[in-house]
Amino acid sequence: MKTATKHFLNTQDWSRSELDAMLRDAAAFKRLRTGQQLAGRSIALLFFNPSMRTRTSFELGAHQLGGKAIVLQPGKDAWPIEFDFGTVMDGEAEEHIAEVARVLSRYVDMIGVRAFPKFVDWSLDRQDRVLEGFAKYSEVPVINMETITHPCQEMAHVLAMQERLGTQDLTGRKYVLTWTYHPKALNTAVANSALTIATRMGMDVTLLCPTEDYLLDERYLDWAKQNVKENGGSFSVSHDIKAAYKDADVVYAKSWGALPYFGNWEQEKPIREQYKHFIVDEEKMALTRSGLFSHCLPLRRNVKATDAVMDSDGCFAIDEAENRLHVQKAIMARLARELDSAGRDAVTGNRF
Amino acid sequence: MKTATKHFLNTQDWSRSELDAMLRDAAAFKRLRTGQQLAGRSIALLFFNPSMRTRTSFELGAHQLGGKAIVLQPGKDAWPIEFDFGTVMDGEAEEHIAEVARVLSRYVDMIGVRAFPKFVDWSLDRQDRVLEGFAKYSEVPVINMETITHPCQEMAHVLAMQERLGTQDLTGRKYVLTWTYHPKALNTAVANSALTIATRMGMDVTLLCPTEDYLLDERYLDWAKQNVKENGGSFSVSHDIKAAYKDADVVYAKSWGALPYFGNWEQEKPIREQYKHFIVDEEKMALTRSGLFSHCLPLRRNVKATDAVMDSDGCFAIDEAENRLHVQKAIMARLARELDSAGRDAVTGNRF
Amino acid sequence: MKTATKHFLNTQDWSRSELDAMLRDAAAFKRLRTGQQLAGRSIALLFFNPSMRTRTSFELGAHQLGGKAIVLQPGKDAWPIEFDFGTVMDGEAEEHIAEVARVLSRYVDMIGVRAFPKFVDWSLDRQDRVLEGFAKYSEVPVINMETITHPCQEMAHVLAMQERLGTQDLTGRKYVLTWTYHPKALNTAVANSALTIATRMGMDVTLLCPTEDYLLDERYLDWAKQNVKENGGSFSVSHDIKAAYKDADVVYAKSWGALPYFGNWEQEKPIREQYKHFIVDEEKMALTRSGLFSHCLPLRRNVKATDAVMDSDGCFAIDEAENRLHVQKAIMARLARELDSAGRDAVTGNRF
Repeated sequence: MKTATKHFLNTQDWSRSELDAMLRDAAAFKRLRTGQQLAGRSIALLFFNPSMRTRTSFELGAHQLGGKAIVLQPGKDAWPIEFDFGTVMDGEAEEHIAEVARVLSRYVDMIGVRAFPKFVDWSLDRQDRVLEGFAKYSEVPVINMETITHPCQEMAHVLAMQERLGTQDLTGRKYVLTWTYHPKALNTAVANSALTIATRMGMDVTLLCPTEDYLLDERYLDWAKQNVKENGGSFSVSHDIKAAYKDADVVYAKSWGALPYFGNWEQEKPIREQYKHFIVDEEKMALTRSGLFSHCLPLRRNVKATDAVMDSDGCFAIDEAENRLHVQKAIMARLARELDSAGRDAVTGNRF
Repeated sequence: MKTATKHFLNTQDWSRSELDAMLRDAAAFKRLRTGQQLAGRSIALLFFNPSMRTRTSFELGAHQLGGKAIVLQPGKDAWPIEFDFGTVMDGEAEEHIAEVARVLSRYVDMIGVRAFPKFVDWSLDRQDRVLEGFAKYSEVPVINMETITHPCQEMAHVLAMQERLGTQDLTGRKYVLTWTYHPKALNTAVANSALTIATRMGMDVTLLCPTEDYLLDERYLDWAKQNVKENGGSFSVSHDIKAAYKDADVVYAKSWGALPYFGNWEQEKPIREQYKHFIVDEEKMALTRSGLFSHCLPLRRNVKATDAVMDSDGCFAIDEAENRLHVQKAIMARLARELDSAGRDAVTGNRF
Repeated sequence: MKTATKHFLNTQDWSRSELDAMLRDAAAFKRLRTGQQLAGRSIALLFFNPSMRTRTSFELGAHQLGGKAIVLQPGKDAWPIEFDFGTVMDGEAEEHIAEVARVLSRYVDMIGVRAFPKFVDWSLDRQDRVLEGFAKYSEVPVINMETITHPCQEMAHVLAMQERLGTQDLTGRKYVLTWTYHPKALNTAVANSALTIATRMGMDVTLLCPTEDYLLDERYLDWAKQNVKENGGSFSVSHDIKAAYKDADVVYAKSWGALPYFGNWEQEKPIREQYKHFIVDEEKMALTRSGLFSHCLPLRRNVKATDAVMDSDGCFAIDEAENRLHVQKAIMARLARELDSAGRDAVTGNRF
């Protein structure tokens, strides 16, 4: 009897106790760098978009646990892929996700997928079709390496907050997710994720953004509200910079394009340019309780945050980036246990 | 005394008993996934063209046998290479194959080469100069990862037929290689290979194609005829879809551009477009004995074969793709034994 | 107390006895291919420019010593990076070197950097800002994989000369670095390096080039003069081909663009084209004592050197290329010992 394959697509799909256990495992992996949790196992890392941290931390993480990562860049190293169902494939795509996912499932034990939105039509992008296509057809666990959310970053972020605040319990800490300016309209993935995980951890969360136009998709606002109900804490939206920063325990910055203008980015650009003053600087950080600041990286210095903030003791962006390595080991090890319990021939290692 | 290096360029270069032994080894590797046959050894994988299955199956296969694959993409990650001899190299190429092959031979124990035709002049492409250049200058075994033939796919295909038909002996089974439509004129490599290996296995082989224009190069037609003489079975060409499918044990589909129009693909296009009805569908498959169908992938659904055929129980394209991993391990392990017997210092591992 | 991280940026930064020890280690690695000097360690290989030999020899070398290489291609696989300090990053670069280097330092134990000059303004290129940026911000050793010098090639070159001349002591041997024609204006890196290391080894070094315009940057001319003072030997410039080749023990060829025309390459081209006769041919090699010739590769045959010279017994370009593997193992092993002595927790392997 085949049960549904357990994927790591979003933290919302996992229970709080499962997430907490993975965070404890990650802290342990940080102390003791290597292990054998992936011995004899492999993971395909599919990058539909470029990456440095994700690539390095997954490839190295798998290796340090005794596993093997294969890095693929579809559409660059490989064929363009079709994600729609039932199509007559007479366009660009040479292959259907059904075949790609099934074949990879025969080769490897896990599949990591990075696939950014196409950035033309949010009603399409919000379906997360690449990731969902792999999740549907793959016979092995699929890991979200950033699509329209970035759950691995969430876990690294939480671990870094736990380290900096000296406690695993983040309940009631004041958390500000602040929009910042960036010359290009960017993906909402990390913003969606920050909102999701901070509310999940029971924090008092403020989403600080210039106007209603910069609100996140209702799916993630709903997740935030639901998380508050189940985990305590609070969630509010603010357009008042000073009020939001006041007494914050943690400030997390991210830039994103306004959803009502999705795809019409030239129209959005002059609006966005009115809000360059959302840059994280020392004056704003002086309003906080702790001076703790982070960002998922890459970050444009003196555009999103000043040199002074980035180089301050309170900046834990580098710690958070390092934690990617450790939390992803915990996630892969967790999914490997899932595979073990799903059944694998003791002698041959083949899955049933 | 140096003997000629043994390469894996084409199955025709190997005896039937050698191929059969590799197929048995592949079946064994499929059961017992790992080994140490490549311990301390390495293979360079040179991709002049993109790849997903080949890349993954070779890189992972080498790893699972204790070896190390280095993936290179000449002309993208590295320099453009000259394959002609005696040239004054004042054009684009920065380096001659003589140096590339000799240097790689010092680093690694095997070299895999993927190099598709340039698709302008078949009289040039049929010389397979990239592969032959490596074979000439390399001091270590060279493996064809698809050029104008695709022998690794052949082996995977045979193993999958043996599995599905429940016997290693394919003699006298009715095999149809059917041309199918594709919006682009494609390489004949897999078609050449299917014809070669099916006749080699003593099958009753029908090459089904729209007209004489779609016949394969005489080299491969000759190989087919020679194989029939030596291995039994039969070989015939048909343009009659129903007659060809009737009572077939296996249907294998592939699209390719018509050789008489080679390089003049715009002229060939309207001709090709008359034959969209060669698509493999349920109606045609109902004429067969077994309903067994495969394709080398990538496959455009509902262009080359319908969703119904691809998702049918008789479709073994995914099995065949999986078998790439296993047969390539057998091929690499075989070539490694060749290296051992060619002599390698017992202490240092250096080749004599 | 943190001491400055020891990098391998240029051979001039290392004592002669340190270089000699690495060369002995390299010779030992050539005999006994594998080791555990990098067990549990990793190196990021950053290629801002393409590579085949460097990529293969570093990735394989790390593996053969028990380590793991991660290959990154910033600007292609990853984000464009800012190397200036204090900038408002509103241009193309998405990330600052400070973050890139610090994050990589958390993941890996060493960082290799290949970054060719931009080739527009030598006064900028000669600052070697990419390499220096990594050296400044990295918390782990940085290795120069070719920027405006190529110290790994130097070591491989010396090892090959020692092998061919049958002695570790190269003092007083006559060494000719000859400029050759190439259709494009090329980087001076290998020429700078050849001059540096040959004088360092106490050889009698002649820099043979068409005119004063083809002299190398004064930094490297100064290094050469300083090396002669400290290591014996001699250094002179010649524009007389026959005199320079006369009785040479080793001829090393390289093409480069004339520095006074740097960035104005169209203007330099007709000048360069007057000197095609600098090609290394049998007639010139007949003037030498030994017939020993090498080149760093890639080499355009019959442009820089004739087929006859390349295929002669005296050509050791392939040996030199092979030695890249061995010397880089020695360099990585040396830096790993540095890391050990810098302190690493015995249980966790984490750096202090």
